[in-house]
Amino acid sequence: MTDFDATRAMFHLPEGVIYLDGNSLGPLPRAAVERMQGTLRDEWGEMLITGWNQAGWMEQPRDLGDRIGRLIGAETGHVVLGDTLSIKVYQALAAALDMRPDRRVILSDSGNFPSDLYIAEGLIRALGRGHELRVVAPEAVAAAITDEVAVTLLTEVDYRTGRLHDMADLTSRAHADGAVTVWDLAHSAGALPVDVAGAGADFAVGCTYKYLNGGPGAPAFIYVAPRHADTAFPALSGWLGHDAPFAFEPAYRPGAGIERMRVGTPPVLAMAALDAALDVWDVVDMGALRARSIELSETFIAEVEAACPMLTLASPRDPVLRGSQVSFRFEQGYAVIQALIARGVIGDFRAPDIMRFGFTPLYLTNSEVREAAHRLAHVMQDHLWDAPQYRTRAAVT
Amino acid sequence: MTDFDATRAMFHLPEGVIYLDGNSLGPLPRAAVERMQGTLRDEWGEMLITGWNQAGWMEQPRDLGDRIGRLIGAETGHVVLGDTLSIKVYQALAAALDMRPDRRVILSDSGNFPSDLYIAEGLIRALGRGHELRVVAPEAVAAAITDEVAVTLLTEVDYRTGRLHDMADLTSRAHADGAVTVWDLAHSAGALPVDVAGAGADFAVGCTYKYLNGGPGAPAFIYVAPRHADTAFPALSGWLGHDAPFAFEPAYRPGAGIERMRVGTPPVLAMAALDAALDVWDVVDMGALRARSIELSETFIAEVEAACPMLTLASPRDPVLRGSQVSFRFEQGYAVIQALIARGVIGDFRAPDIMRFGFTPLYLTNSEVREAAHRLAHVMQDHLWDAPQYRTRAAVT
Repeated sequence: MTDFDATRAMFHLPEGVIYLDGNSLGPLPRAAVERMQGTLRDEWGEMLITGWNQAGWMEQPRDLGDRIGRLIGAETGHVVLGDTLSIKVYQALAAALDMRPDRRVILSDSGNFPSDLYIAEGLIRALGRGHELRVVAPEAVAAAITDEVAVTLLTEVDYRTGRLHDMADLTSRAHADGAVTVWDLAHSAGALPVDVAGAGADFAVGCTYKYLNGGPGAPAFIYVAPRHADTAFPALSGWLGHDAPFAFEPAYRPGAGIERMRVGTPPVLAMAALDAALDVWDVVDMGALRARSIELSETFIAEVEAACPMLTLASPRDPVLRGSQVSFRFEQGYAVIQALIARGVIGDFRAPDIMRFGFTPLYLTNSEVREAAHRLAHVMQDHLWDAPQYRTRAAVT
Repeated sequence: MTDFDATRAMFHLPEGVIYLDGNSLGPLPRAAVERMQGTLRDEWGEMLITGWNQAGWMEQPRDLGDRIGRLIGAETGHVVLGDTLSIKVYQALAAALDMRPDRRVILSDSGNFPSDLYIAEGLIRALGRGHELRVVAPEAVAAAITDEVAVTLLTEVDYRTGRLHDMADLTSRAHADGAVTVWDLAHSAGALPVDVAGAGADFAVGCTYKYLNGGPGAPAFIYVAPRHADTAFPALSGWLGHDAPFAFEPAYRPGAGIERMRVGTPPVLAMAALDAALDVWDVVDMGALRARSIELSETFIAEVEAACPMLTLASPRDPVLRGSQVSFRFEQGYAVIQALIARGVIGDFRAPDIMRFGFTPLYLTNSEVREAAHRLAHVMQDHLWDAPQYRTRAAVT
């Protein structure tokens, strides 16, 4: 069991705010403030350059990788921290393509993050070998896996609708056709139980500023299955992925296993905040988290649908098919979200018409979720949503 | 003029330490502690997701880019922060090669950071088009620039010896032969006056944790000359380099100018520390800094050579040809550096036999430099450096 009152107490939450956007940026873990002070004053300030060894900065990308690895079902020693999710997608995709030099298709879906697709586009152009980025509807992915496909590049939870792919099933289909899998866990890690090893995933990547609460711009992570770890091609072959970074050899020799997916100097200050954020997970059972997440989202859907018939559920109705978020479609969704924020409920909007609400049991209560639904109902009742001023689709920034 | 007592007071320096390793990791700027507290508590803690607009996090990579741009002679709006130096080298080199599709040679030198060479190797293998990384001696670079060369990939200041390339001259030679230039300013930015625009550099990159004191793992920067900014190919085409990141369009459209060199979500916490560190430069005249740097390094060389005949100067004797560091060769250099650190003088060692000392006028005084030289002389006198225990070359970590 997990004591969610105890986990809630581990976060700073602004007075009067109901925060349904932890899927975009998790709140400040109280421990991060003191941890950062210590890293600044006692480590950087006092140890200076010797902090790389004395304070363990150099090992931290692996240590934090293992802490996250436990949340996504990775084998110990096969996850490393660093860079941003975009960079990690590039590394994973480049390594995966290198394993299938005879094939030219990267299969993805329209529910993937545009950024993952952009990264694939840039890599394809850099490679200049005529790869094709084939983007199908999410529900068409299974059927689109053929022996033409080199790599499937999929995000487990759709950032707009919350729809959840079946990672084990799609991975097994990909393998049956000889394709390599790259899974983006940006909306999965810390949101629901994940089992990359059990699913047989080849590569997985994710960010740490959403459900893992690592702070704005916190570093990303990458997982490489043990069977590939010592042969995966490191396209971004920086010195910290070298087998002996401090030997300053003229030629690159990839490090053992996941080490080769390190690139440059690790972001020590950002890792301090993330390390503090990960402490929360020491007292969390992922099964209990998932049950609570479903309870919160089911409550929200029931309350909103009862009070707001103008809104259309954009997420799967079956909670088993959803991540830890719920979205509704509404043409004036941008204006509704702004009005909600003005009433202390923070959700977000994704073009063209998605109002998105994240459910984060670590710090969100059932009564807050009910209150958020009530405020949304008030917003919907208070405005003449057919009036012309709401018909303009405001620019999203 | 610059008041170096005032700049010294802006840093926290550990009691009893003479720090000659600011070229590896600059010390903690006092202002960084409070700035970070504010970013954690008042921005992340209170603003949550709205911090991206309210606190200006989204613009910070450009704002900090301009602050650094002023130190390297860049045009306003043509430098951006993010990622690590290795990643920025990859971006710059990929874009530079894309401008010379008919050529296959990347020219570098043996004084370059191995990491830059590793990144070039990885890119060459990813591209798979038979590029050649041609590495010559530093003094042979000028003669090796021919019309075969697509890109020159050079670090202005040699990380081991401190030897300074003539950026304007080599850039002009490269252009005369139709080559594109990528300059690594890791040991230049904040160390000496740099003028990328005046030199006609095409691309420049650098890190911010050395002479710019941004903290361990602080983000890197990239400069793209205005004449290339709107056409440079972004191989790492992440969402924040998109022309409209929040429109979530399915296809990548590169952003205007330097924006396209942004990749993923910016590292907000690391940028807070760096922003505080850059405040120091508001009161610094680069000409005065250079004069003081030369004064400090000349003092050190004179004192050390007078007292330690066993040591061989590895840096250029003419200060005009050096960056802001001095190196001596000694076979048992690793052990000497360890002994020096035990006596409160922090320098560093670079294989195979280089003892390296950085001179950072912002916080280093003439009397400290003399004292460091005296302690080095004592270390040299106190030990029987011919004894067998010093003959083993210890592993460097």
